[in-house]
Amino acid sequence: MKRTERVGAMIQILTQSPNKTYSLQYFCDMFGAAKSSISEDIRACNAALEFTDTGRLETGVGAKGGVKFVPYISDEQLSQLQSEFCCKLSDPSRMLGGNFLYTSDIFFDPDFIRRIAAVFVRKFKDCGADYVATVETKGIPLATNVAHLLNLPLVIIRREAKVSEGSTVSINYFSGSYDRIQRMSMSKRAIEPESKVLVIDDFMRGGGSISGISEIIGEFNGTVVGVGVAISGLEPKKKKIDNYTALVFLGEIDEENKKITVLPNNDIF
Amino acid sequence: MKRTERVGAMIQILTQSPNKTYSLQYFCDMFGAAKSSISEDIRACNAALEFTDTGRLETGVGAKGGVKFVPYISDEQLSQLQSEFCCKLSDPSRMLGGNFLYTSDIFFDPDFIRRIAAVFVRKFKDCGADYVATVETKGIPLATNVAHLLNLPLVIIRREAKVSEGSTVSINYFSGSYDRIQRMSMSKRAIEPESKVLVIDDFMRGGGSISGISEIIGEFNGTVVGVGVAISGLEPKKKKIDNYTALVFLGEIDEENKKITVLPNNDIF
Repeated sequence: MKRTERVGAMIQILTQSPNKTYSLQYFCDMFGAAKSSISEDIRACNAALEFTDTGRLETGVGAKGGVKFVPYISDEQLSQLQSEFCCKLSDPSRMLGGNFLYTSDIFFDPDFIRRIAAVFVRKFKDCGADYVATVETKGIPLATNVAHLLNLPLVIIRREAKVSEGSTVSINYFSGSYDRIQRMSMSKRAIEPESKVLVIDDFMRGGGSISGISEIIGEFNGTVVGVGVAISGLEPKKKKIDNYTALVFLGEIDEENKKITVLPNNDIF
Repeated sequence: MKRTERVGAMIQILTQSPNKTYSLQYFCDMFGAAKSSISEDIRACNAALEFTDTGRLETGVGAKGGVKFVPYISDEQLSQLQSEFCCKLSDPSRMLGGNFLYTSDIFFDPDFIRRIAAVFVRKFKDCGADYVATVETKGIPLATNVAHLLNLPLVIIRREAKVSEGSTVSINYFSGSYDRIQRMSMSKRAIEPESKVLVIDDFMRGGGSISGISEIIGEFNGTVVGVGVAISGLEPKKKKIDNYTALVFLGEIDEENKKITVLPNNDIF
């Protein structure tokens, strides 16, 4: 097998399962090659990945040292993503009245959410999370992508306890967006006690729903180690949670003049 | 830039956005290379991908002919996946009573659902779908993966009409699993009229929920062009829909003897 083909195959295997560690021996056995050749191949893989700026290979040290693909988004790609996002969101045809915007097309566009996910992966790759959690429904595809890129299991918190979830823990919380008490519910089997959880959601206004997630995770003696939301409302300024990373900020929705203000977060990293 | 690095970069770009067509010119410009070199690189990419058996590049003909990555799962990888799936599902600790099984850990495992998604991609890649649709909640991560691998927008049908969906179309249907009338609701903006839709779900018992999806798609003059479910119950034998592809069949859940019968579908392709 030619080096070119070997490098191509390694890139495909490694990038298909991001953040999953493969031992060098795995590739030695696969290609019938010596460790020195595989090490050289890894350098070639990295040169190729550097060119696309979508991630890099990280190699561990010692006898157990393996190699894994860590996704990345460059500052330039991030700016491009944010300006596309602002442009999409400020389209006045999204206005639904009552300060609501239609955003499902954005959050259900596989390519676009994959790029948003890459931002959260760059931000939270070292936060030590054991799980990626979200509350149904609109943020699930985004959280699915983050979980895949971080190689972590996903947790979906439900609005209602379902038979298929077995025993559940439920809490009530106040949602500012809907101006009423809401309920969320999580299966007792969903996470191990004392886990670290990265919370991902599509939209945050006052933070009620995210602080609800924190509370329910607390019921499992778990800790929220990071919060990433694609869109955060500028108002109310005082949120129910302090630490979160938003990709863009949604300002005023001026229905009379058909104008939606959206600003990029220039302070993500 | 060396050929090895160029081939690696091309594989990363193409496999990151499956079923998205890139013109040869795109790569010529990116690498400052002639079309003849890029064509040779594509052959090298294909040789590398052939080795991993995870997909291949398809090139179009004519002036507009480009190249795209089409994911694939081999018969051998499929058998392996099905036996892992059967083994996971038949674990008696999943029993929740009332013929329900806990399966969230399976459907929220990013790597595992990506492999299931590849089966539906191989099955439905030529079905002509414009969208991938599912009904909330547990099948969403799987449907997200299928949508990404087919490069199609996702549609999530809700249980309740939400303010953030704008105007919706709702229907009622009978759910055999829950033995009651249920409701589902879809935003009027979710699909274009007369679209073709591929339906993906985690589990089907009598087919009530899938036939509900068909009905609601019908309200948009759309057509269901394929149905893929990860698990189908063996009972009832007579489903409300005729054409569907299941990965595995769930037989008897014998609570007394702690035995769950699960069989692979040997007739997918």
